[in-house]
Amino acid sequence: MSKKTKVNAAILIIGNEILSGRTQDTNTSTIAVWLNSIGVKVEEVRVIPDIEKTIVDTLSYLKITYDYVFTTGGIGPTHDDITAQSVSKTFGIKYEIHKQAFKILEAYYKPGEFNDGRQKMCWMPENANLILNPTSGAPGFNVENVFCLPGVPSILKSMLGGLTNTIVGGEPIKSHTISLRTVESEIANSLTKVQNDNQDVEIGSYPFFHAGKLGVSIVIRSEDQSKIDVCNSQILEFVDAKKIEVVER
Amino acid sequence: MSKKTKVNAAILIIGNEILSGRTQDTNTSTIAVWLNSIGVKVEEVRVIPDIEKTIVDTLSYLKITYDYVFTTGGIGPTHDDITAQSVSKTFGIKYEIHKQAFKILEAYYKPGEFNDGRQKMCWMPENANLILNPTSGAPGFNVENVFCLPGVPSILKSMLGGLTNTIVGGEPIKSHTISLRTVESEIANSLTKVQNDNQDVEIGSYPFFHAGKLGVSIVIRSEDQSKIDVCNSQILEFVDAKKIEVVER
Repeated sequence: MSKKTKVNAAILIIGNEILSGRTQDTNTSTIAVWLNSIGVKVEEVRVIPDIEKTIVDTLSYLKITYDYVFTTGGIGPTHDDITAQSVSKTFGIKYEIHKQAFKILEAYYKPGEFNDGRQKMCWMPENANLILNPTSGAPGFNVENVFCLPGVPSILKSMLGGLTNTIVGGEPIKSHTISLRTVESEIANSLTKVQNDNQDVEIGSYPFFHAGKLGVSIVIRSEDQSKIDVCNSQILEFVDAKKIEVVER
Repeated sequence: MSKKTKVNAAILIIGNEILSGRTQDTNTSTIAVWLNSIGVKVEEVRVIPDIEKTIVDTLSYLKITYDYVFTTGGIGPTHDDITAQSVSKTFGIKYEIHKQAFKILEAYYKPGEFNDGRQKMCWMPENANLILNPTSGAPGFNVENVFCLPGVPSILKSMLGGLTNTIVGGEPIKSHTISLRTVESEIANSLTKVQNDNQDVEIGSYPFFHAGKLGVSIVIRSEDQSKIDVCNSQILEFVDAKKIEVVER
């Protein structure tokens, strides 16, 4: 992928346990923060069940819509782990034993322990690039712009570092936060004016409740630091005029 | 909506702060657990940015695909709160001051404090049904099968109770969890056999790491308790044969 100014991504969380509410997804935030740091902006997240047709249909759309797609979940040894076969079907690529993955897992387990269930984790789309797993052996994999990671948060985290040089990001997205001791409705009109005057900057307003006190965090995001600085000045100007206490600037 | 056996829903999380990873979404799990308890199964979650066209396009698809759609975020007083106008556009309904919402907020604020920013929270699709907010005054709203809730988790939680009688669920989805002191690859083949023998039951396998020990939780889900019981027996049978320790049954 050649260097672009703006590079985007989608995250696809595969797993009934997130949809049932049994498990709280934390991988979205982990992946999004890491991608931001290398200049990739997450523009959509979807959570879908462990159903092959749904995975294939969703991936087919996401892979042509975004520069990168990151999936989490469904690459373990059990019957509900169907991400690898679904990715093979999405790209029309043979689903087979990946020789390098086989060697890694054969070496990882004790002799005699590399059973059928564990061997399932070597089945991948033909010629997939492996994403190495420093925590628990079983690798993830990458086909074209789709990167498949496990669902267990600690294992997923340990695998991102090895991917950083594979992803070609754009300009890193910078952000600046101003936290105020106020409520949103006190600053809404003034903030709208700043947003209207700076339409290519993303300004978000987020109420918070911390240590018994209400406040609002204003987050300014752009690839261009000078544009952030302009918004920052304009915001601090109306904040001073309104005599609002600044908690963090 | 007439009583059906299976009732499904989608959740639409609206907010740049989730996509940037700045904020960890917890509303999905809150809404999903509540919906399960009243017989509604969440089949898809999407997270999208504060962009009107994206909200309108996504909602237009979700509202005809699922029995219910729940949105979170974007109903506050600031410029990035555009859910109400987007829902109006989705349904082709006039976006205007909602008289009942106006009265609620006028009474909620002290005289002179009900400013323009706060009045923005009364703008809704014409004739929307209000979803009352016992925590902070500003109501959510409902148009046809779309229910719009705020993004702040504690406020959202406080509003679900009032909705319970509005949602017509199907048979409640029952679930049973068996937690084992093992790893997935030890039980994968046996569990696949149970799933194949009971294809209309959802069996999930989730590795966990707790108090320094690895384990696997098997979750069996169905509307029919007797089917859960059959799976449970079949699973405990192979667990006993393999001499695996049961942590929770």
